[in-house]
Amino acid sequence: MILGKIEELVDRARHHDTRAIAQLISLVEDGAQELRQVLRLLAPNTGHAHIVGITGAPGVGKSTTTSALISEYRKRGLRVAVLAVDPSSPFSGGAVLGDRIRMQEHALDANVFIRSMASRGQLGGLSAAAPQGIRILDAAGFDVVIVETVGVGQSEVEIAGHADTTVVLLAPGMGDGIQAAKAGLLEIGDLYVINKADRDGAKTTARELRHSLAMSHPSDGRDREIILTSADRGEGIAEIVKAVDAHLDWLKDSGDLGRRRARRITMEIEHLAIAALRQKMILQAHDIDGLTLEVAEGRMDTYQAADNLLEIFGRMKP
Amino acid sequence: MILGKIEELVDRARHHDTRAIAQLISLVEDGAQELRQVLRLLAPNTGHAHIVGITGAPGVGKSTTTSALISEYRKRGLRVAVLAVDPSSPFSGGAVLGDRIRMQEHALDANVFIRSMASRGQLGGLSAAAPQGIRILDAAGFDVVIVETVGVGQSEVEIAGHADTTVVLLAPGMGDGIQAAKAGLLEIGDLYVINKADRDGAKTTARELRHSLAMSHPSDGRDREIILTSADRGEGIAEIVKAVDAHLDWLKDSGDLGRRRARRITMEIEHLAIAALRQKMILQAHDIDGLTLEVAEGRMDTYQAADNLLEIFGRMKP
Repeated sequence: MILGKIEELVDRARHHDTRAIAQLISLVEDGAQELRQVLRLLAPNTGHAHIVGITGAPGVGKSTTTSALISEYRKRGLRVAVLAVDPSSPFSGGAVLGDRIRMQEHALDANVFIRSMASRGQLGGLSAAAPQGIRILDAAGFDVVIVETVGVGQSEVEIAGHADTTVVLLAPGMGDGIQAAKAGLLEIGDLYVINKADRDGAKTTARELRHSLAMSHPSDGRDREIILTSADRGEGIAEIVKAVDAHLDWLKDSGDLGRRRARRITMEIEHLAIAALRQKMILQAHDIDGLTLEVAEGRMDTYQAADNLLEIFGRMKP
Repeated sequence: MILGKIEELVDRARHHDTRAIAQLISLVEDGAQELRQVLRLLAPNTGHAHIVGITGAPGVGKSTTTSALISEYRKRGLRVAVLAVDPSSPFSGGAVLGDRIRMQEHALDANVFIRSMASRGQLGGLSAAAPQGIRILDAAGFDVVIVETVGVGQSEVEIAGHADTTVVLLAPGMGDGIQAAKAGLLEIGDLYVINKADRDGAKTTARELRHSLAMSHPSDGRDREIILTSADRGEGIAEIVKAVDAHLDWLKDSGDLGRRRARRITMEIEHLAIAALRQKMILQAHDIDGLTLEVAEGRMDTYQAADNLLEIFGRMKP
């Protein structure tokens, strides 16, 4: 893509052109060369959106809740983007697209943008891709960017690190307090939602969760709110938005917003620097092969080999 | 620890002193400074052991099989070490120790060494720790080093990359062919064991697995053997050892042994180099804070910040 084209694309995205925004997100997925240019152009426009992470085990109703949250934000006249990321898969899977269908009620609303994102060609995987996708949506003038994780495991926790406010979803019977503790969810939630609250056991789940949260000690000393919802009936959704807003106010008042964002940026810089170095290593295959042989034949240990490799980099132009 | 002490410890480990070996593994877990010295001293003694990886979902009988394999190798007069690694946990957990108890029949045999390993202080986590632990056991003169993974998920696949021969364990009903495919186990096994073969469904599991394996195309073009065992009765264990030995012969004849080991060494060197760089970054906190501020205030994008960071490193002495 030639330079003028990128500038035009970025400009259209800044002026809320949905197709241009989608094209920029695709550049992120592909780890395209043009991305550097895009992010440089967008840098002055970032830092305005409230980034809300939504995470939880499969089946707790993340998509239904997200869809209901979009409606609630739209009622308030806010522009909303949803980025659904699947850290466990390099491909955008069928299940993800299936879930997206539930959000189709918003498909014709120009102030809503919904997109699944994989990380096909991205150096550093989704850890590098997610913040770049978020940054594009932020610069495209969305008031709220919801980052929804798909999939399970440790990576949910990682993705939650990209948000200002992290909402952890549980459902009765699936996500009791102990399960949440095991999954590391007690450390990452700024607020907790027990969805499907019309089902048996919702109050027990809430009680167990409250107990588990009381035992954990969040570093910011703030009490974690627990909200009961039935997202498919739209019940409790306004309460989530209220709590998310209250958390943003608290972040601003306490100065934590700046600190959280700075921490995220630092991580991203380090991530990109390491990815670039890894790339350089691949290019230095000849040197590595020589060092590997030294180690394989017992003339050198791996630490010494690593030192030598870094010395070779030190002599290269950055 | 003073230099003479380390030399003495390494010398004792080389002469099969169990306590000295255990102390060296602890140095690996802690990521101790002395490790560099240890690995430098051991380098000339490595490359002799056959590294056998054993992996599979919890409950398939990994520990029972490993214990039976030890007995089989001892019958043949070989020295055996077992390194049980849990990639999912930075701590050596209770469950792991519980499993170890099943291997206590070998506790008094000086030619058997069994040890769980975590990666408490290790830069680069278990990916860096596992090969160092293996290297110590190799240099301590064990003929066979069994690396057994504890835990689940993607990391099993990663750990399998440290072995010459990877044995994937399944059990009827738990690990049918499709499950194995999903878990990425079809790509990593050099041979497959269906344990608890006295149970219903063992033959179905074997058939499904054979079908799944036929659909996957291993890069080395070698057919994967499937062995049925009942490890708790000692049935089929001699067949595993025979198949593992046959695989080693094949590795040597085809030249794949050298290639696999070289690939592992290369990965380890890169891993250590990146871990060292990450460490440097932490030390350069002042520079990163400045770059973070530039990005937070929209004056710079993260790519540019990463470039600047690498430039700062380039000017540092390696």
